[in-house]
Amino acid sequence: MPESAPTAITVGDTGEHALIARIRDRLPPAPSWLLVGVGDDAAVIRPERNRLDVVTTDIAIEHVHFDRRFVRADAVGHRAVAANLSDLAAMGASPRYLTLSLGLPRDLPLADFDAIVDGALALASRHKAVLVGGNISRSPGPLVVDISAVGTVKPRKLLTRSGARPDDAVVLSGTIGSARAGLQQCQAGLQAGPLQAESLIGRFSHPEPRVRLGQALARLGAASACMDLSDGLADALSQLALAGGVGMEIDADALPIEGDARQWFERSGVDPITEALAGGEDYELVFTMSPRHQGRLRAVTRVAHGLTLTRIGVVTKEPGVTLRRNGRRDALPAGFEHFAN
Amino acid sequence: MPESAPTAITVGDTGEHALIARIRDRLPPAPSWLLVGVGDDAAVIRPERNRLDVVTTDIAIEHVHFDRRFVRADAVGHRAVAANLSDLAAMGASPRYLTLSLGLPRDLPLADFDAIVDGALALASRHKAVLVGGNISRSPGPLVVDISAVGTVKPRKLLTRSGARPDDAVVLSGTIGSARAGLQQCQAGLQAGPLQAESLIGRFSHPEPRVRLGQALARLGAASACMDLSDGLADALSQLALAGGVGMEIDADALPIEGDARQWFERSGVDPITEALAGGEDYELVFTMSPRHQGRLRAVTRVAHGLTLTRIGVVTKEPGVTLRRNGRRDALPAGFEHFAN
Repeated sequence: MPESAPTAITVGDTGEHALIARIRDRLPPAPSWLLVGVGDDAAVIRPERNRLDVVTTDIAIEHVHFDRRFVRADAVGHRAVAANLSDLAAMGASPRYLTLSLGLPRDLPLADFDAIVDGALALASRHKAVLVGGNISRSPGPLVVDISAVGTVKPRKLLTRSGARPDDAVVLSGTIGSARAGLQQCQAGLQAGPLQAESLIGRFSHPEPRVRLGQALARLGAASACMDLSDGLADALSQLALAGGVGMEIDADALPIEGDARQWFERSGVDPITEALAGGEDYELVFTMSPRHQGRLRAVTRVAHGLTLTRIGVVTKEPGVTLRRNGRRDALPAGFEHFAN
Repeated sequence: MPESAPTAITVGDTGEHALIARIRDRLPPAPSWLLVGVGDDAAVIRPERNRLDVVTTDIAIEHVHFDRRFVRADAVGHRAVAANLSDLAAMGASPRYLTLSLGLPRDLPLADFDAIVDGALALASRHKAVLVGGNISRSPGPLVVDISAVGTVKPRKLLTRSGARPDDAVVLSGTIGSARAGLQQCQAGLQAGPLQAESLIGRFSHPEPRVRLGQALARLGAASACMDLSDGLADALSQLALAGGVGMEIDADALPIEGDARQWFERSGVDPITEALAGGEDYELVFTMSPRHQGRLRAVTRVAHGLTLTRIGVVTKEPGVTLRRNGRRDALPAGFEHFAN
């Protein structure tokens, strides 16, 4: 977030009603199913026929989830939406609408407020999610951005965490560790320009939720269980194993870690595999796939074009998640847990 | 919130997964329409047939919306749910489910965490709202409780802000000013015991959202416009007038202010009418009613038993909201606006 001159107009100068008006002015025309949008006590929505609603919520708090010294305001909005859309993707749902709650420090520059909203709306609209309501409050401390998102899915297409079966393949989208490397680069004082979306810092600041992949997995019935990596791969694998009453054996050599990220970790004197397994906020999907369905992987790849899918291991009958590396098998390092540090 | 011994177990000692487990342990059996509840990436819900979804969200931030020195932990949870259910009531909706996002200071006693959740769940279950998901994070500063709530309403029964017409009566539920007087009593160091729900402090700490009244107004087609008082009566009247393209004339003598509250304000040397108009968080409903429909008021009163309904004024063709008092007509004082002070 660029430093603002002390005379910049702030949200404290502007007032709640005027801030809500600034959001309304940024909204595209309402879809026909949105009967009452931003501005009444609540939004009113016509449910989609023959679909289930999928509901998630994700709170982002300054100094915990982001640091305004190196996360630009538009990225704060983008990341908050990404976290929610990623949860919907993990269930195979198509995004439909979201609500936005903001707790704003009084000295937040108005330009940053606009950028947060623009960042959120830009990502939402790319995935056809409509902002239908929200809530603005002052915050005496950190900036708080809390989003709830609702998507829909056909009843029998839903993906959950609990379906992994022994001998299923464990498949991961994209790469892991890049967001963590990007965060570490920010913390080390490096900066990315606005257009370096493919840089490690870009992967951290503007993660891409795997909405199309989730939809494809659901539609094609390709996954037995699915989860997103918001708290890191190690955490996701543990949760999938636990929910399915199974175990997993992961092949360290198969883990897709970008060369840039690997180099960054090595130069920093840390183990790339450990970092990539523990690092949260990559927002990739990990899913399991029955051996009978592995022919569907090609169709899935076609739909989620450009996105690499990597088989990283196998589901086992024995509980526990182990990492096979250099001929040894070790328990997986723990994922990110709030309060844990 | 009672002071805890420094050795009390805190949420920081407990960890995110264990906190989520504590919430799950408190939940009643899931209704049949909740296909996936707390514990997956998102909740999955079967929509209600032939109903519209009504969606609201409301954030409560420590030091802005409450002060833990005099709002007990269970009241923090209760009030956060009340704010959301009140929004649903204002639309005539029946509550169905909610999500809960928490930002927790690391030193929050675990007993207080439990009490926040219990306070929220107790009020939710009284109004048949089911907790379906949420999100727990650490907060580096204030305690943050953000709730989104979804209710349903029959398509043609929906109440909105925009239907007030000239000559409609302006009707208010319950009394106003009590919550503000209760807050002021807390700030002055007075304390209420746990059972004094009818005291002014109880009206502040455990407000009762007017869910049954909203449902009755919707079902009986009795209101032309409706809104809740979360930001005070003055603000609500201004919004109703603005949304309807009308004005209002309010009779100061008709405003229902409890004797206790009136006495408190008078002893404090402030004007009871001004305080009652400006004070937020009474969570009453104000609605307008066509002269043709005023016969329905008795049926509404019967359904919302025990709740007083008071005619406080009339809708006018000329825009603006005026207060008739001692033979004078003045513009209404402003309501509570965040950032305004």
